[in-house]
This record gives sequence, structure tokens and C-alpha cells, in this order.
Amino acid sequence: MVGGLTLVQPDLELAASLFDSLSRATRRGRGIVRDSYGPGEQAAHDIARCAAETIGLEISVDAIGNLTMTLPGRDRRAPRLVMGSHLDSVPQGGNYDGAAGVVAGLSALSALKKARVEPPYDLAVMGIRAEESAWFDVPYIGSAGAFGLLEPASLSVQRSDNGRTLESALIERGFDPLTIRARRRLLDPSQIRAYLELHIEQGPTLVAKGLPAGVVTGIRGCKRFRNARCIGKYAHSGAVNRPYRQDAVAATVALLHHMETVWLQQEGAGADLVFTAGELYTDPAMHGPSKIAGETRFVLDVRSVSDATMEAVAAEARRAAVRIGEAYRVSFELGATSDSPPAVMDARLRARLMSLLDQPFEMPSGAGHDAAVFAKMGIPTAMIFVRNAQGSHNPDETMAMEDFEVASQALLRLLLDFPL
Amino acid sequence: MVGGLTLVQPDLELAASLFDSLSRATRRGRGIVRDSYGPGEQAAHDIARCAAETIGLEISVDAIGNLTMTLPGRDRRAPRLVMGSHLDSVPQGGNYDGAAGVVAGLSALSALKKARVEPPYDLAVMGIRAEESAWFDVPYIGSAGAFGLLEPASLSVQRSDNGRTLESALIERGFDPLTIRARRRLLDPSQIRAYLELHIEQGPTLVAKGLPAGVVTGIRGCKRFRNARCIGKYAHSGAVNRPYRQDAVAATVALLHHMETVWLQQEGAGADLVFTAGELYTDPAMHGPSKIAGETRFVLDVRSVSDATMEAVAAEARRAAVRIGEAYRVSFELGATSDSPPAVMDARLRARLMSLLDQPFEMPSGAGHDAAVFAKMGIPTAMIFVRNAQGSHNPDETMAMEDFEVASQALLRLLLDFPL
Repeated sequence: MVGGLTLVQPDLELAASLFDSLSRATRRGRGIVRDSYGPGEQAAHDIARCAAETIGLEISVDAIGNLTMTLPGRDRRAPRLVMGSHLDSVPQGGNYDGAAGVVAGLSALSALKKARVEPPYDLAVMGIRAEESAWFDVPYIGSAGAFGLLEPASLSVQRSDNGRTLESALIERGFDPLTIRARRRLLDPSQIRAYLELHIEQGPTLVAKGLPAGVVTGIRGCKRFRNARCIGKYAHSGAVNRPYRQDAVAATVALLHHMETVWLQQEGAGADLVFTAGELYTDPAMHGPSKIAGETRFVLDVRSVSDATMEAVAAEARRAAVRIGEAYRVSFELGATSDSPPAVMDARLRARLMSLLDQPFEMPSGAGHDAAVFAKMGIPTAMIFVRNAQGSHNPDETMAMEDFEVASQALLRLLLDFPL
Repeated sequence: MVGGLTLVQPDLELAASLFDSLSRATRRGRGIVRDSYGPGEQAAHDIARCAAETIGLEISVDAIGNLTMTLPGRDRRAPRLVMGSHLDSVPQGGNYDGAAGVVAGLSALSALKKARVEPPYDLAVMGIRAEESAWFDVPYIGSAGAFGLLEPASLSVQRSDNGRTLESALIERGFDPLTIRARRRLLDPSQIRAYLELHIEQGPTLVAKGLPAGVVTGIRGCKRFRNARCIGKYAHSGAVNRPYRQDAVAATVALLHHMETVWLQQEGAGADLVFTAGELYTDPAMHGPSKIAGETRFVLDVRSVSDATMEAVAAEARRAAVRIGEAYRVSFELGATSDSPPAVMDARLRARLMSLLDQPFEMPSGAGHDAAVFAKMGIPTAMIFVRNAQGSHNPDETMAMEDFEVASQALLRLLLDFPL
């Protein structure tokens, strides 16, 4: 962008004050409640907008409520650079999940504004709506909606706590559900030169590694057997010997154990993979302490930054289900998978971010982020994670300002170095 | 007993007629309902008693409703030989579970009576009350009660379907709950020279082996971890890599898989063992398709005719739970076991029954039977199983009269050969 600006530092005073305001405005009991399109999320948008006005940024709100705060560049028609994240939270979540990315963007633009930098093109911070599917079970409403990607049927999805539809929630806030119904594009991908997102890590890797920040290699996709079953036969646990059993629990254990060995093999070969059976249950109406179980239901959740890895693991699960089903005289019905593709981060942006860290470290993102939508649209996208000690999606989520500073500085450096 | 009686055959005409009467009187829809101390069981007792009166047997009913039908012997004071089984059924059960043992006894005594045999001592058939714990969750009410073994607290156990206590059910039928409250003995073990029980097999072994009948080696005991738990930590299924997981499902799968290898080892070493986890579930209020499970609950049911085998397997389960808990960063709480000891059948009676079968075959009984109570009292006890094609405790339970004939003949031969 410009030389001689290496002394510009993110406005951490602003950042601290914003985190403080957000916490005060949206804490309900122990946790944070920024309900998508509800008063909690709106309060966060109001705080961000007020800060942006104070900094002197241009403000715009699109037809589905995404807030864009812009430091104008010399060439207003040149593709702009967008930073951002979401401003909603899960119910009883923490203060930093999402908000940290918006605050980092504002503290970068505040620093540039104070240093009287006029960038060559617009630098924008987006406060994105409704990323958390805890309220409306639709992924990435704000970012996917802005690119015209949302299914119109999403409008009739009901909010999990009060049953209000997404459509009525949009209307109540003065937004326009027709945008979604008509799959209208509010953002032109060709007019965005890059998307940068700072986010707290939602897992324990950075804590375990003792690192303040990490560069994201990609956002794991997910291939999920949502409604897998094993059908055996109920029988007396004492009266039926092993060779005659059709034990759904034993067969499911054999399948899951096999998939753990597959996981270890994939890890050993250097593949990125996580494999989870987060739901597993016999039928409470039919099972019993002295019965062999005649049925199990379970979920297999396969995630990787590599589509090929997910395909290979899912295919092996299907093969193993047939083989183990025969061996245990049961039948598995794994059903169809629901798939969300992985999103690969831009190689040049990744490399540049790595070069900006004292302790460079790369890792995949297991959770989804709005960055996945921007990457899907072909926009060069990068993410940086900040260490987070207590897991995310809970009131104890935490982030040290020193760690935020490390990641924010890298983000600001990347801005200043653009176009690389 | 006496020679020259090898031509005496069990009264199979009587047996067929009794099975027919029992089915007509106690079928409710598809299945049989002989509710313990209810009208269904009473109807079966009435049918057996009526047949015994027709044969010309002595009838007595004890203070808790057990029916004894006796062919008097020459020495009325000598210890008698008892055949029998229970006359209740599970809800929607089959016609043969229990009743076949009483019918076999009556068809033997009918044959002896017709052949004008006067045995050297009394030969009795018992129609035992309330063996199925489906109605009152108390094992062996009739036989254990007759030996003064029932806990007085059993009287306040409520019937599973209508909430009536065992005490009120006894009173309603004209029986005496004080017998149980005072742990009074109605049967003197020293006055019973042997107990013989014919019963349908409740598993598929005889069907699989293509055999009509089998001699029971012993009745498996049970060592059960009724309330086992695994405590891990809920986390995002995508964001937490393997080394940082506290996955309760993965750990439970590892434990159950290990116990299957232990089972195979025990089998390989010739031990009698069945191992079942018939209940296994994550918490429906907490689990989720994109969550690592933070808790499982499960039951481990260990059965063997050998106490030592059960002890060894339970001890290995405890050791493995510690080891696997550490490896998976979770903690297992297996809890205490509830134990019922195995019952060993009398070696001489077993050998004699084996010698009376054209295709001698021995097997353990996985399910419990009244015979376990008689064996526990030190009475020489034997059981013979009849092939049963559709599993027990369901309306499709079945028994071919040809198979019943094979077992009944062996039983009658054993009677005639006594005292061996």
C-alpha cells in the first residue's frame, strides 16, 4: 500500500473500549446473548456503527442488515478490501466469538485514519448478520444472503427459541426478505479484492501449543451421516451366545472402532481429519439391562480441509458398514450424507500472514466461518485465529488482549503491505 | 425305581390337551398373558389342578399359592422327588415358557398312574408362582418365597402395569403375605431328594445345532454394571483435534471393543461367558450432530456359569476403564455391580440325562430359572431344555411336540431310574 507506515499500530484502546461496551450491552446473566436479528445482535451493530461514525468512516447497511464501515480510498471504483466477522453470538456465548473480527477491523481503520493514511482503494469492515445457526438453523445468513446464495425456503425457518420465522424477523428490523426470495446479490465478488477475518480459535490447539495466534490453512468441510442406524435383533442377554447374536451395540462399536483406526491411518499419512460420533443411542423404549440391543442410532461427522479425504473416509465407512454388518449379522443403514465443502484460504495471503508472525503457525479451522462463503465466491480470503482458553460457545470463552494485539498487528501489517 | 417299566411313555395326549387349554384360556390377542398372581396365572393353575385331579393326584396349595400335585409313594415320609416349573408368563409371551415343565411333570405322573406304578417315595409336580419378574420386579417369588428367601421389602414392590403391591396381590388371591414378612419356610430342602425342570430353551442354540433337546450344565450368574458412565467434555466436533479431545463416545467404544477381545480370549480358553452392553446412550438434552459427546451412560452385563470368570471379566473391565480413561482424557464411573450367583446343576443327574438322549448335548442356561433356587438350597437339581424356534418372551415362541416328547421321555426315564 504505502511504505514508511511500519510504526502504525492497531488502536487497542478503541478495541478494549468496544469489547467493554459489547459485554455491558449484551450480557444476560453469565453469558452473552446477541440473538440473530434480535435485540442482542442489534445492540452490537449499534455499538460498532457508533464507533465507526466517531472514527469518521462511511456507513452503509444492506437490505438484509449487514453493516459496512468504509475508509474511502483514492480510487473509489477499484475493488475494495473487506475485513470483518459476525456480530451475533450463540445463546449464553462469549464476548469475543465474531465480535473480535469486527473490532480488529475497526481498530485497524482507526489507526490508519489517525495516521492520515489515504489508502489506494476502499478499506471496509463488515459487521455480518446471523452467522450462528443456533437461532435460525441456516448457515451464514448474512454473508451467504449478501451473495444471493440463500435458499428462499430459508425465510420460513423458525427461530429456535420463539418460533418466529426468519422472514418476520427481517421485516421487524426493517430489512427486506424479498432480497433472499429473489436470490438478489448485494455484494459483487469481482469488486472485493480480498476478505480478511480475525476470529478466536474455537478449539484448544493454540493454548496447547502456547501460541498467541495462528494462520488458518482452510475451513474444514463436513460430510455427515446424520441419521445412521444399525438394525439387529433384541434378545435375552444371557440366553444367546456370541455366534447367534445380532447385537446392534457390538456391531456399532466395531464400526466406530474401525473408523478410529482409519482416522489414525489418515493422520499418520498427514491428512487433515476429525471424525466424531457425537450422538449414539439405543432405543429407550426397547432397550434393557438384560437385553441384547436390536437397534442403535448414531451420527458420523467427518471433517477435513480436503474433499478427497472426506470422500475416502465416508467411502470406507460405507464399506466397513457392509463388512461389519455381515460379520455381526446386523444391517447398517448409514443413509445419505449432508455435505458442506471445505474452503481453502488464499496461498499468498496465508504465506504473507505467516511471515508477519514471530512464531508462525498454521492450522485448519474446524468450525465454519463467513470466510468460507467469501472463499467460495472466488475472493482471495485469509483468516487469523486468536488463542482462546475456555472453548467457544460458552460464557467462559476468553481472549487475552495481548494475543488479540499479536493477531491485529499481523492483520494491519497485511493491510499496509497490500497489494503484496 | 423299578425295573421292567421301559415301555412306559409320557402321556402326550394329555400334554397336547393341556397346551391347548392353556392357550385358549390365557391368549390375549396374539400373545399369552399369565400375569403373576393375576387372572392369567390363576387360569393356568386352575387348568393344571383340574388335570391333576382327573389323573388322581393329591393336591395342595401353599401359603403363597404354589400348587403341588403328588403321586403318593410307598414311604410317605421319605424325601420326595419334585418336578416343576412356573405357570406365569411375561406380557404377550408364548404358551410354553414355564408351562411346558408343569405339563411334562403331569404327563409323566399320568403315565405312571395309568401303568399302576406305586413309586417308593412321593413324586410331585409343582406349578410355581410368579417366576417372571416382568410383573413384580422380584426374582423367583414363588420358589424363593417357598424357601423363606424373599426379602420382606418385596411385599411393597408394585406390579409394573397397574401399581398394585405384591402384598395386595397375595391378599386378593387369598394367600398370606405374612409368610414372606416372617421369611417362613414352606419347603424343607432336606425333604426334597431332587428337583427336575424341563423348560424351553430361551436362546437359539438347539435350533442352530439341529437338536431337539439339551441338558443344562448350569444357570449363568450375572454380574452387572447397571449404571456405568463415561464423563468427557462437550466440544465442537470440527474445532478440536484428536489429541485434545475428551470424547466420551470414543472412549466408551474403546472400552467396549476391548471387552469384546477379552470375551474372545475367554471363549478361546474354553470359559463360559456372554458379555452385553444392552443400553448405551449419549444425553439427548446435550448431544448434537456437531458436538463431541461429553457423556455416555451404559450397562455392562457379564454372565457365566463360573463365578471366577465373571470376577475376572469385571476386574478387567475396571482396569481397562482406568487405562482407557487416561488415554482418552475422560473418566469412567462403572459403579458397583449387582450380582446373582451362578447355579451348578447336579453332576450325576446331568450325566444320567445325557445318557438318556440319542444326541447328547450340554449347554449352559443364560436365563434364570426356578431350578437355580432349588440348586442354591443344596437340592440336587437338573434341567433339560427343549428346542424353541422363535426366541422366548414373545408371542411367536414355539415348541414342536416331537421335541417335547424327546425331553419328556428323558425326564420320565430319569424318574424311573431313580435313585440312579
